[in-house]
Amino acid sequence: MTPVLHLAPGTISLCVHAALAEANLPHELRWLDFKAGAQHGADHLALNPKGRVPVLVTDDGPLTEAAAILEWIAETAYPDLMPADRWQAAKAREMMLYLASTVHVNHAHKLRGSRWADDTEAHAAMRAKVAENMAENAAYLEDRLTDDWVVADFSAADLYLWNVTRWLPGDGVPLEGYPRLAAHHDRVAARPAVAGVIALHGG
Amino acid sequence: MTPVLHLAPGTISLCVHAALAEANLPHELRWLDFKAGAQHGADHLALNPKGRVPVLVTDDGPLTEAAAILEWIAETAYPDLMPADRWQAAKAREMMLYLASTVHVNHAHKLRGSRWADDTEAHAAMRAKVAENMAENAAYLEDRLTDDWVVADFSAADLYLWNVTRWLPGDGVPLEGYPRLAAHHDRVAARPAVAGVIALHGG
Repeated sequence: MTPVLHLAPGTISLCVHAALAEANLPHELRWLDFKAGAQHGADHLALNPKGRVPVLVTDDGPLTEAAAILEWIAETAYPDLMPADRWQAAKAREMMLYLASTVHVNHAHKLRGSRWADDTEAHAAMRAKVAENMAENAAYLEDRLTDDWVVADFSAADLYLWNVTRWLPGDGVPLEGYPRLAAHHDRVAARPAVAGVIALHGG
Repeated sequence: MTPVLHLAPGTISLCVHAALAEANLPHELRWLDFKAGAQHGADHLALNPKGRVPVLVTDDGPLTEAAAILEWIAETAYPDLMPADRWQAAKAREMMLYLASTVHVNHAHKLRGSRWADDTEAHAAMRAKVAENMAENAAYLEDRLTDDWVVADFSAADLYLWNVTRWLPGDGVPLEGYPRLAAHHDRVAARPAVAGVIALHGG
């Protein structure tokens, strides 16, 4: 069957959507209405008890976690999406893991503080630190980006980084202060397959 | 040169140490004194500006992020540590990404609340929710574990899961309530290479 991507605008599912387009892999889309809480509805929890997106439903079953799906797309339809070289692959994974476990988490403290505390004053305290944390992460990424791409050639790590970079201005971190990160963002966004996907996510 | 693992007791570096032992890969250890703040010292930041462990220093340079290092060890010295099958590999990565980006993060809100808020009352509010979040994660893992290992055979995902499971009792989640997770923990801990490593981490 055709893989089905469950996704929502503004989330990390964007980079998976872009990878499907880059891979030219036929797929269907199921948009979730996060404002209506569809990610916590029974239908979605049956696919992904974690109540998150992306989920890619494949012939083998549902697969979650954006970086795992990106590597699956690479192995299924688009080998160039992950480096063949062992060290380059390790560095691409290192970047995706950092983005998933540190930067995405810092970003989530703006709107999802209720995951980590019940007290609304604590949520406000978390929101107050988001810009500082995201700026620190952006500075690390700016230092890390010494060439056009995260590793030698365009890879899944670039799509993941571009997805997260899009959140920075809204988190109080203008890209003007990070010229290499800004140029990387524009480089990914200018790829024809990526540009086509952005339009479907509201620009 | 021999790879050098920079590590500290009580951290996610344990599963990387165990993987080096499982792989029978010669290595050196550099223990960091976290209580003395060594992870934020100039020597360590030169290796890893993120100020974390594990770091594995290889011939190609330093590599960070536990799951990236585990896959590098698999590709370098111990292919069986990652499944050859594409779907099984995807599910192993899905598990490691979930542990890294959700469960480890929930755990970190007990002692590392200052990462996400400056207010000490907010830190207390975060600590108060750790047991609830870790119990929810343990319930997901209990449902997910339908066989001896995370995927068909023992893999890097089992070492990662075992490392995180060790944190549950200290986070207020006794393993008695999760028999499959408890059995999985004991199954990994009983492996001779793993048992030898545990002893070096204070049991």
